[in-house]
Amino acid sequence: MAAEAGSALGLSVAVLAESPDDAACAVASEVVVGSPLHEDDMRALADRVDVITFDHEQVDLAIVGALLDDGVVIRPGLQTLEMAVDKAHMRAVLVEAGIPVPAHTTVEGGGGAGGPAEKAFAAFGDEHGWPIVLKTARGGYDGRGVWPVDDMAEAAAIVGSLGGTVLVEAMVPFDAELAVMVARRPSGETVTWPATETAQVGGVCREVLVPGRLPPEVVGRAGVLGRQVAGIADAVGVLAVELFWSDGVLMVNEIAARPHNSGHWTMEGAVTSQFENHLRAVLDLPLGSTAPQHAQVANVNVFGGPEGTDPVELLRRGLAVEGAHVHLYGKEARPGRKLGHVTVCGDEAEGVRECAWAAALSLGTPRPVGLSLPVGLDLPSGVA
Amino acid sequence: MAAEAGSALGLSVAVLAESPDDAACAVASEVVVGSPLHEDDMRALADRVDVITFDHEQVDLAIVGALLDDGVVIRPGLQTLEMAVDKAHMRAVLVEAGIPVPAHTTVEGGGGAGGPAEKAFAAFGDEHGWPIVLKTARGGYDGRGVWPVDDMAEAAAIVGSLGGTVLVEAMVPFDAELAVMVARRPSGETVTWPATETAQVGGVCREVLVPGRLPPEVVGRAGVLGRQVAGIADAVGVLAVELFWSDGVLMVNEIAARPHNSGHWTMEGAVTSQFENHLRAVLDLPLGSTAPQHAQVANVNVFGGPEGTDPVELLRRGLAVEGAHVHLYGKEARPGRKLGHVTVCGDEAEGVRECAWAAALSLGTPRPVGLSLPVGLDLPSGVA
Repeated sequence: MAAEAGSALGLSVAVLAESPDDAACAVASEVVVGSPLHEDDMRALADRVDVITFDHEQVDLAIVGALLDDGVVIRPGLQTLEMAVDKAHMRAVLVEAGIPVPAHTTVEGGGGAGGPAEKAFAAFGDEHGWPIVLKTARGGYDGRGVWPVDDMAEAAAIVGSLGGTVLVEAMVPFDAELAVMVARRPSGETVTWPATETAQVGGVCREVLVPGRLPPEVVGRAGVLGRQVAGIADAVGVLAVELFWSDGVLMVNEIAARPHNSGHWTMEGAVTSQFENHLRAVLDLPLGSTAPQHAQVANVNVFGGPEGTDPVELLRRGLAVEGAHVHLYGKEARPGRKLGHVTVCGDEAEGVRECAWAAALSLGTPRPVGLSLPVGLDLPSGVA
Repeated sequence: MAAEAGSALGLSVAVLAESPDDAACAVASEVVVGSPLHEDDMRALADRVDVITFDHEQVDLAIVGALLDDGVVIRPGLQTLEMAVDKAHMRAVLVEAGIPVPAHTTVEGGGGAGGPAEKAFAAFGDEHGWPIVLKTARGGYDGRGVWPVDDMAEAAAIVGSLGGTVLVEAMVPFDAELAVMVARRPSGETVTWPATETAQVGGVCREVLVPGRLPPEVVGRAGVLGRQVAGIADAVGVLAVELFWSDGVLMVNEIAARPHNSGHWTMEGAVTSQFENHLRAVLDLPLGSTAPQHAQVANVNVFGGPEGTDPVELLRRGLAVEGAHVHLYGKEARPGRKLGHVTVCGDEAEGVRECAWAAALSLGTPRPVGLSLPVGLDLPSGVA
């Protein structure tokens, strides 16, 4: 989607991809086959471009540091990437800056029964109450690397599989989950899109609503907080700040230093999309307006359904849903794999949400368990 | 831009291009290097895709016919392409169907002084009044192949350079030029976007305004006429119908059987863009809503300015114009070459037009001669 935005601005986008079959390669001007974790591949990319940026957290900070030392322009820079790559570091920096975050501690994973990790889980659970959340500081994504555990028995069962630093956190009894997208230039010029309400199931984002159930006052506070975090992180490009809203307090849960699922709604819902502003920011070009274009926007993710469904027939059904903007990522459909998203804009919250869900379900998305669907959702015929 | 829309839908787009450096190749999944005028190249493309469509009129009807006979799916088909490729044929078909068109006749070009072409020009000018317009029936584009001539002396001066069939037309004293974009599926299902007012200088489109100065009644009539023409042409995909509005009458000037400059505004201005609906239509998928998203949309084309202007500096200036959606086509800048367009959406006609012109001029577009700029247009500093 960043490459689509780059194409619209007449930019030439080179992609470093593991395989020329990666979906991004189809819309890139140039492809470098390789891995961001291999210095030679990163240098091959650097030779071809003015600026390197990331759309994931598979970042080797040592390689980034070496390239930066040699004058390669990488945006965001090391300070931001360290926070995005390492959740324990992110928490520490935010606490130092006085930003509210969930109660937490860190411990080195492993060690088996009775080891320091297990003892730390027990002590933390006893102090803050169960359940607690265990997260690997590095490498998590879309619910991977995150384990909510109800009691000490569950914590003990997984302690052996946890390597590296483990973040031990209180389970926040949130009233809502929010995300605020921020774009920031090297000069510090910063813009934010209106905060969204997000809904996750099993740590995987299922839908994003703008503004959702959020009162304007909370949307405004989230924007201020997002802007603060972007400054603390010295972000350049787009920064996603995921928040809990709990008992009148906003606290930072996660950050991502790239365009993010929580910002896909901006493609049709705002004057400038997160992808365009990410490219503008990392190229140090003026940022575009983040003003919303509609009173209500709903964004629902599309996941692979059961095997054997005909993708053309699914597309036909999804496109038959009037007003639904369908985005598919060109990935091979597998059950449970995130394949795309649907955005619907309009004046009325329940209407846009229903429409987006109708299209996502028509596209084969399994009905989510643990997420309350809109009241009265009328599924197109033929959808289970 | 069609490839960007295809990417969003997860479609794989193969491009037949004269050179791998063509801008479209950068966003295509696959590139076949060759010419649409060579049967082998067209067959190489046909081997790779489910459907072939065109984004220009460089179409060899005999090759298209041969491929269709062999079962290749080409949309739109021969009946539409014949009208799009040959203006004399288009006029004849529309007259037969009772659609208003400018007074015209046809004659074979060439023949020199006193030949049949010169005699036909004189007879036509005497009957319908001077000036008249001479058009080559085939091969014109963006003002090329069109000569407005004031009198017999001017007509005589160019008669020797006119080969093939020449369309001789009355110069219509229009009150406005309009365009209506239509999308039509193989089944005949048809949608139209609201008609636009267009402004040409020297046959080259400079700006498109939605709805411009057009009263709703005329917008409605233009939509009906566009839909009729699409049916007569048996169009599949997007059809652009360019109209004159003259003394209360709407008449068809040109048609194009593809996404068209007059429809670029739909990318941000309508729920579904002309590019997405073109792909949906040629793939026989449900068409998207053509509802406008804003009360007013202005679209201004970007042309190459004097040599030596720094494209990055120009982009910086263009993006600094708040609210301007900049589209650049990845073409090398040359003076007078169409390089992109700017779209601005809003509530107020003069405001969106001013903003779009400000961005286009900032991007290096020479100030047009023969087109009245908006009153009070305030150019950003540094723009000549």
